[in-house]
Amino acid sequence: MELMIPLNTGISSPMYEQIYRFIKEEIRQGSLSAGSRLPSTRVLAENLKVSRSTTQMAYEQLLSEGYIEAVPCRGYFVAQIEELVEVKEAPAARFVPEKEEKSSGIAVDFSPRGIDLDKFPFSIWRKLSRNILVDDNKALFLNGDPQGEYALRQAIGSYLHSARGVRCRPDQIIIGAGNEYLLMLLALILGRDRVIAMENPTYKQAYRVFLSQGCQVHPVDMDRYGMKASELEDGEGRGADIAYVMPSHQYPMGTVMSVRRRQELLAWACRKEERYLIEDDYDSEFRYKGKPIPALQGMDQNGRVIYMGTFSKSIAPAIRIGFLVLPEALLKLYREKAGFFSSTVSRLDQNILYQFLTEGHYERHLNRMRAVYKGKHDILLGGLLGGFEKVFSIGGEHAGLHVLLTDRTGRHTEEELERTAAEKGIGVYGLSRYFIHPEHNSYPPTVLLGYASLSGEEIERGLKGLREAWDIPGEE
Amino acid sequence: MELMIPLNTGISSPMYEQIYRFIKEEIRQGSLSAGSRLPSTRVLAENLKVSRSTTQMAYEQLLSEGYIEAVPCRGYFVAQIEELVEVKEAPAARFVPEKEEKSSGIAVDFSPRGIDLDKFPFSIWRKLSRNILVDDNKALFLNGDPQGEYALRQAIGSYLHSARGVRCRPDQIIIGAGNEYLLMLLALILGRDRVIAMENPTYKQAYRVFLSQGCQVHPVDMDRYGMKASELEDGEGRGADIAYVMPSHQYPMGTVMSVRRRQELLAWACRKEERYLIEDDYDSEFRYKGKPIPALQGMDQNGRVIYMGTFSKSIAPAIRIGFLVLPEALLKLYREKAGFFSSTVSRLDQNILYQFLTEGHYERHLNRMRAVYKGKHDILLGGLLGGFEKVFSIGGEHAGLHVLLTDRTGRHTEEELERTAAEKGIGVYGLSRYFIHPEHNSYPPTVLLGYASLSGEEIERGLKGLREAWDIPGEE
Repeated sequence: MELMIPLNTGISSPMYEQIYRFIKEEIRQGSLSAGSRLPSTRVLAENLKVSRSTTQMAYEQLLSEGYIEAVPCRGYFVAQIEELVEVKEAPAARFVPEKEEKSSGIAVDFSPRGIDLDKFPFSIWRKLSRNILVDDNKALFLNGDPQGEYALRQAIGSYLHSARGVRCRPDQIIIGAGNEYLLMLLALILGRDRVIAMENPTYKQAYRVFLSQGCQVHPVDMDRYGMKASELEDGEGRGADIAYVMPSHQYPMGTVMSVRRRQELLAWACRKEERYLIEDDYDSEFRYKGKPIPALQGMDQNGRVIYMGTFSKSIAPAIRIGFLVLPEALLKLYREKAGFFSSTVSRLDQNILYQFLTEGHYERHLNRMRAVYKGKHDILLGGLLGGFEKVFSIGGEHAGLHVLLTDRTGRHTEEELERTAAEKGIGVYGLSRYFIHPEHNSYPPTVLLGYASLSGEEIERGLKGLREAWDIPGEE
Repeated sequence: MELMIPLNTGISSPMYEQIYRFIKEEIRQGSLSAGSRLPSTRVLAENLKVSRSTTQMAYEQLLSEGYIEAVPCRGYFVAQIEELVEVKEAPAARFVPEKEEKSSGIAVDFSPRGIDLDKFPFSIWRKLSRNILVDDNKALFLNGDPQGEYALRQAIGSYLHSARGVRCRPDQIIIGAGNEYLLMLLALILGRDRVIAMENPTYKQAYRVFLSQGCQVHPVDMDRYGMKASELEDGEGRGADIAYVMPSHQYPMGTVMSVRRRQELLAWACRKEERYLIEDDYDSEFRYKGKPIPALQGMDQNGRVIYMGTFSKSIAPAIRIGFLVLPEALLKLYREKAGFFSSTVSRLDQNILYQFLTEGHYERHLNRMRAVYKGKHDILLGGLLGGFEKVFSIGGEHAGLHVLLTDRTGRHTEEELERTAAEKGIGVYGLSRYFIHPEHNSYPPTVLLGYASLSGEEIERGLKGLREAWDIPGEE
């Protein structure tokens, strides 16, 4: 059989590729039928007046893609290709333009999720990353420790000990790309059959992660001391063997768990094997009155507390670095069940953060931000005390990055508070959003006002809008 | 009741804290019993000759930690604290020194996992990160798109289309912190009750992740065309509805899946609802002969292929960036089941990578590395053909970052090949390590030799050692 292959020396694609493409198409279209013998690379080269190596390359490509087969001592044959699934040429990928953030018409957004980045020490961060990216640091581009860089865990450990009273060795710490990933890891370590008690209202994102991992969640009511420990033994929480709590500053209620409640929870955990408390210490850095509340983990004498921290609030959410502190018993389980997972955080980023911590930048940054947020907090509270207090009781102040307003008069529903504010271009967030089962919400109408990402001027403008929206009596 | 509190004006800790600590200790030790009334802040201030605000701050701290309670119009009372769990002072955190990488005595390690970083363009990476870390980019520190930055997904999409024949829109792409995380996500999207067929031998890390997520895995034998599709309907793979394959360059066998086999797999996937193929295209960038094999995803007309890619081999493992390309049907499921998960990759890193891709650095880097690796590949092959071929057949060459040596003579067991090499300080890796059930390994003794992280000189030294270890006849 002779192949008439129209070769075009003009076009860019190399000879061997034109031969390869031509034969491939012939086979696809069936013009070259399965089993038919192809000319030898030598013969084809002579016919086409190309070098032998050219035809060899073309055949090799066809071989490797399985269009032809080589039979020792006999030559090349067209392979059997069932057109079970027709192979068309691919249309070019369509790229839809990036969707515009549709403007919500909200001028002042009291979102409780924001943080203030105006004071972020970009120049320092830049300097640190520049110093790390030197050629003799290329080891940093190779795989690192699955738990995270040892030096960084050491730095986090000593920070936690001095600032939060957490007691741990670096090998109890697991660094991961954000709390959601760490909760996935935790569900894997603890086992998916676990029943987890959560404060209600709570941090819904953690709730969603637990469900996604196949865990059961029992919502448990709170009082002003925190999660009702009594409910764990017999009540809504019955059957739970894990309790997820935020003792230093509950989200969204802002409650600080009392020592006694902490002890009750620790006692509950000790009463049975395999019981644990997950302490999410997400924003304990920000407290504007008194000293920070020491972590529950530091009170635990029996290895029943799993401590979770993050740099999302204290540095920035986008750096995606959080960590777990596991008690000994779970450390063993982690190594068995999840020890093979590579770290999810870039080694470079870990080292930038390490420098940031150990060179004192983090502490300076925290102090600066504490002052910044306290300033905004005071402006907000000052404004609220100018009339709002006649209608609302104010909660969750003096810590964290938001306060709660609870309607004492029963004048408005939560939905009305949100809507009427929105009509004035102000974003406030109803407490019901944070309930695992909103129908469990027995609180009077309450909205959250976050202030972290707003300027003092914006806060005042926002309050002015809310005054009108909710017809708050002015100061006499 | 009067409190005799020894205040020390000398030491650094503030007055209010000394008062707070003293009372807290008194309560803990029971010297102040539950229910007993404390002096008012005014009286205490007078007794201690400190300002009223000092005693107020001390009481507030005690209140917030729950040691005392305020009864309106009556004053402050010691709270009831059951010493269910005794609260001791925490011992200082112990820091064990970083463990030294114990020297394995391996001088030349033919590890198939390594990559070559000597040619990595650190200066460019540094320049890009410096340019991104400017103050007006602070939005980059806020939470980004859960699927990853749109612009980066756009850049990856067009690269995949031109280089791999992958057809997708940016919104089908999900960027994540490494393949293990992406496989966790995939297990969540597909559902944990899935049965997954994997080539055997295979990439064990993926196997471990699937198991950890509660999926069942059925290992399926391979022939020289790839996974035996016939085994999927009735055979080892029966009952599987997902098949995880590496068509472009199977790990560890180095097999390129033939077109026909690809079509058989696509046909299998189309034969039932809910069947999918996972195409792990982990190192297709490195091919030293002919053109790269187009991706299976490009042949798929029916949305049955889930494409996985990574920058771990082509850039560096430590940057922890990989991606999924989901077919439409799964995109919907992803949004329902996992759409709430925040991205696991730092937005800064995503933008550095975006610049690296769109400014042509990636393509230049790939071309450079292709040449570098081909050079090492050729040195290794050249050396192997100087005698080794008399004992071993050589496989998996001309692509990827390792080759396989299979003992034709039956002279050695795999274990002997590994051990005798190690005795000469050479690391080689038995094929059995990559079998899901090593007892399924019916191959003759085979070892992997990776060359990516070795210099030409090291490769030659390694081969010299292997010659002695395995008494390979020299060239005549």
